[in-house]
Amino acid sequence: MEMTPIHHPPHPEEISGRLSRLQAEMAAQGLDWYVSFQPDNVYYLTNFANFVHERPFVLLVPASGMPVFVVPKLEIPHVESRAIGALTLLDYVEFPAPEGGNWFDKLAEALGDGGRVGVESVCQMQILEAIRGERVRTDIIDDLRMVKTPYEIGRMLRAGQIASAAMADMLATATPGRSLGEVTAAANRLIYAAMVADNPSINPQATKLTSVFHPAQYSHDPHNFGDLDMRMQHGGPHVGIINAVMDGYGAEIERTFFLGEVPDAARKPYEVMMQARHLVFELVKPGVVMSEVDARVNALFRAAGYGQNLLHRAGHGMGVTAHEAPFLAEGDGRVLAAGMCFTVEPGIYFPGIGGFRHSDTILVTETGNLRLTDGPDSLEDMTL
Amino acid sequence: MEMTPIHHPPHPEEISGRLSRLQAEMAAQGLDWYVSFQPDNVYYLTNFANFVHERPFVLLVPASGMPVFVVPKLEIPHVESRAIGALTLLDYVEFPAPEGGNWFDKLAEALGDGGRVGVESVCQMQILEAIRGERVRTDIIDDLRMVKTPYEIGRMLRAGQIASAAMADMLATATPGRSLGEVTAAANRLIYAAMVADNPSINPQATKLTSVFHPAQYSHDPHNFGDLDMRMQHGGPHVGIINAVMDGYGAEIERTFFLGEVPDAARKPYEVMMQARHLVFELVKPGVVMSEVDARVNALFRAAGYGQNLLHRAGHGMGVTAHEAPFLAEGDGRVLAAGMCFTVEPGIYFPGIGGFRHSDTILVTETGNLRLTDGPDSLEDMTL
Repeated sequence: MEMTPIHHPPHPEEISGRLSRLQAEMAAQGLDWYVSFQPDNVYYLTNFANFVHERPFVLLVPASGMPVFVVPKLEIPHVESRAIGALTLLDYVEFPAPEGGNWFDKLAEALGDGGRVGVESVCQMQILEAIRGERVRTDIIDDLRMVKTPYEIGRMLRAGQIASAAMADMLATATPGRSLGEVTAAANRLIYAAMVADNPSINPQATKLTSVFHPAQYSHDPHNFGDLDMRMQHGGPHVGIINAVMDGYGAEIERTFFLGEVPDAARKPYEVMMQARHLVFELVKPGVVMSEVDARVNALFRAAGYGQNLLHRAGHGMGVTAHEAPFLAEGDGRVLAAGMCFTVEPGIYFPGIGGFRHSDTILVTETGNLRLTDGPDSLEDMTL
Repeated sequence: MEMTPIHHPPHPEEISGRLSRLQAEMAAQGLDWYVSFQPDNVYYLTNFANFVHERPFVLLVPASGMPVFVVPKLEIPHVESRAIGALTLLDYVEFPAPEGGNWFDKLAEALGDGGRVGVESVCQMQILEAIRGERVRTDIIDDLRMVKTPYEIGRMLRAGQIASAAMADMLATATPGRSLGEVTAAANRLIYAAMVADNPSINPQATKLTSVFHPAQYSHDPHNFGDLDMRMQHGGPHVGIINAVMDGYGAEIERTFFLGEVPDAARKPYEVMMQARHLVFELVKPGVVMSEVDARVNALFRAAGYGQNLLHRAGHGMGVTAHEAPFLAEGDGRVLAAGMCFTVEPGIYFPGIGGFRHSDTILVTETGNLRLTDGPDSLEDMTL
């Protein structure tokens, strides 16, 4: 398994390798076409990042040969400046266009009778309706994305380094009174500087940074975005969060920390969270069913009396996004394999006390797992 | 038509009025349920903003009575802190969940047999498959959103004021050498400060700012994001862009400007762009077909010899997003009505010379239109 950090864009062979694996699986499923609309899947196969709006980008992959990329005319130079690998561009003039010139007309034309057409679970109804032929729900690209190539592992290793450095800086500058605005600006500046030093032409459309913290009165509610004037305070638990897609590859690192002192009520939850965290690092290796990891974590929390304090699964996948399938979740029956990447983030939440969650991004190796993000995590080290 | 700027969140009556209009149209279309998944539509009906990921938020609107909002358990406090209006929350524990506990199980349960179910054009296949009963493609909420309420007009007036101030500042500080990073940071800081002064608990999830410029060598390619180190230069045309959703309401203002001198090759395109702009302001009034506006603009450009320099329609809708239906486009056969909001942005593009486009956001009034963003636009004023 290649373990050198990489920050250059993929070579055409990386992209054509992905296409070959997609077409091989299409053959296995008896598909004549695969229609990909989900922007992260399109990015994976083209290196071109887009956002969903009323001018869609749709990738039409035939059973063999070059994909056809349906794009707005306006975006041709943009597509040409970023896309890697062989593609036929099929442009439409605008949306809405006069009759016959709309994206759905072009798409229907390109697919012809269609035969058996693979479509993603998230495919829009308006795209489905433009496809003649039999529409088969399947998520081949999502499935391929689960196991990283050596190139991707190098990218994620570098992403993990940058995220870890940003978290180290957040902790080094943590002090009562420090505001959310200051923390976000400092972390994002550091991440951007590292990315641009690596590669001056990073793609801002493939970059998405979340650099925040929650002080104790909010950290029990991990998706709280209610108070833009949050400030660090004496005590804790604070939860610091770096979740970042950096020029196309993601990493996440989170730390629970205290300023000055650890409230008594926080000691046992912290210790139990650490036990759950170590359990995940211990359990994750090829061959283990994902649901088993989450079930074991939840059993540990329940045994400690924290069954009512669970809000989420033990971890999620990571790759060209910072949050994707598969999942270390009781409902995910898939099997862990070398080359997968996950967050490890078992957490417990106590209104009136706060939230307890570290997160690190790991790579599943042949024999276990390896941290792509890293940094101190003990209660002693996290009392600043 | 109410014309006082507003910056407070909607009152429950504003939201229930929208729900009533939706249910009235559902009755007219013979629908038992309406399933809304598109985040901007959900926001319009609930004041709750979300991003699409693997834990979906789905709003189920019955023929009468309170909507049911299918949400992840993790997000209940977040939903409760932002939602306005009567809602029944139906939570699911996680994704994926053990069998029977997934979002699609909850959704199917709540809809029961379903009867006739209205679904959006952008509805995902995986949601469609969870709906028993007859699925009817219809976009009632998108249609309702086209005509603004007095509350919304007040919000958009305020959004226009903030965007105009940010553009005035971008122009006042424009100087050769000024970088994209400086421009983006300064404009976004100004916009955030204005929003937070209005309302300290603005919703960052309902806020999305694009504050950029393109110098002459990129401005011919309006969706170019290739060079993060762009800098302003002597001459031009530069195109400055403020496109912002500010705590739930959008505005756009763009200006073509020059630093120090106007190249000779830029004079005629600028003049023709201004003629097209004035033509749109003149044409937009209730009763006019949208395609007619764009066709007249394109005819004007073609008559000037610029038929090959067109890349996009004359304008797009604006509301809870900064880019939405309907469109001043040759393919849009809808009719202009009082209370609609559009950008006015006819543009022409010349590789080797640059792009020529101003944009302003307007409100269609009973007799014509009114600018929600404003600022100087003459060649003299735009030569800085």
